[in-house]
Amino acid sequence: MPIYFDDLTEGDTRSFGSYAVTEDEILEFAGQYDPQWFHTDVERAESESIYGGLIASGWHTAAMTMRMIVDHHLEDAMALGALGVDNLRWPNPVFPGETLSVETEVVETRESESRDDRGVVKTRSWTVNQDGETKMEMTSIVLYARRPA
Amino acid sequence: MPIYFDDLTEGDTRSFGSYAVTEDEILEFAGQYDPQWFHTDVERAESESIYGGLIASGWHTAAMTMRMIVDHHLEDAMALGALGVDNLRWPNPVFPGETLSVETEVVETRESESRDDRGVVKTRSWTVNQDGETKMEMTSIVLYARRPA
Repeated sequence: MPIYFDDLTEGDTRSFGSYAVTEDEILEFAGQYDPQWFHTDVERAESESIYGGLIASGWHTAAMTMRMIVDHHLEDAMALGALGVDNLRWPNPVFPGETLSVETEVVETRESESRDDRGVVKTRSWTVNQDGETKMEMTSIVLYARRPA
Repeated sequence: MPIYFDDLTEGDTRSFGSYAVTEDEILEFAGQYDPQWFHTDVERAESESIYGGLIASGWHTAAMTMRMIVDHHLEDAMALGALGVDNLRWPNPVFPGETLSVETEVVETRESESRDDRGVVKTRSWTVNQDGETKMEMTSIVLYARRPA
């Protein structure tokens, strides 16, 4: 059943997803989009990085988070696109072998002032590992369609 | 020559990069990380999307931007990692066939209060197309090493 702007309420929370982070995928993403040595060079990361080993690009963590959001949250959502993100943080690095999941809370819903067929929803999300350690958090600002009259 | 925290000054600006956006890459990224139909289904996007055609995932635009930053800006930087991003916005969608570049300005430098070997640099960046239209903007918060005494 499609989820419209009108179906979302401040305070709504959800938990979903299970994303296994692999060394191969970390290297592949970083090789294409973020080729800094602490994301691409396993041996140098183990010997020189302040993190003690290879870590995922923060943009890769964002991308993995997005995949979980799309699969489990936006699948039926009448989302028209994202306007932006506030307060994106990576408080702890993501290592190979971890399993990520997502927790979300709707923090604001606002009808569009210019268009009566859409509204804006702000959602805070936390990307956590299997031990509940927060790896990423952000507030997404997403445009939703309103339920047709 | 390595660029340390101490080499960066508020008001420093740079322009760099040239990234050709292809339909194939939009489809590949979205298929793996953001499989919403307006990023993955060319025909449906052309007939149903409010944007009039296939557009890149915002996270893909962020990833392409990061690649330009790494290649042209962070190559020699003694960056230790990103703490986060503020005010990430996608004011206009990215279409296949566009060419992106990046403009940056250092907006704040702050020595670490807890560790004298590092500092935090905030940089505002704008990802623009060949006509100067802004596709993405963000303020990156990045940890840099200080120049050894």
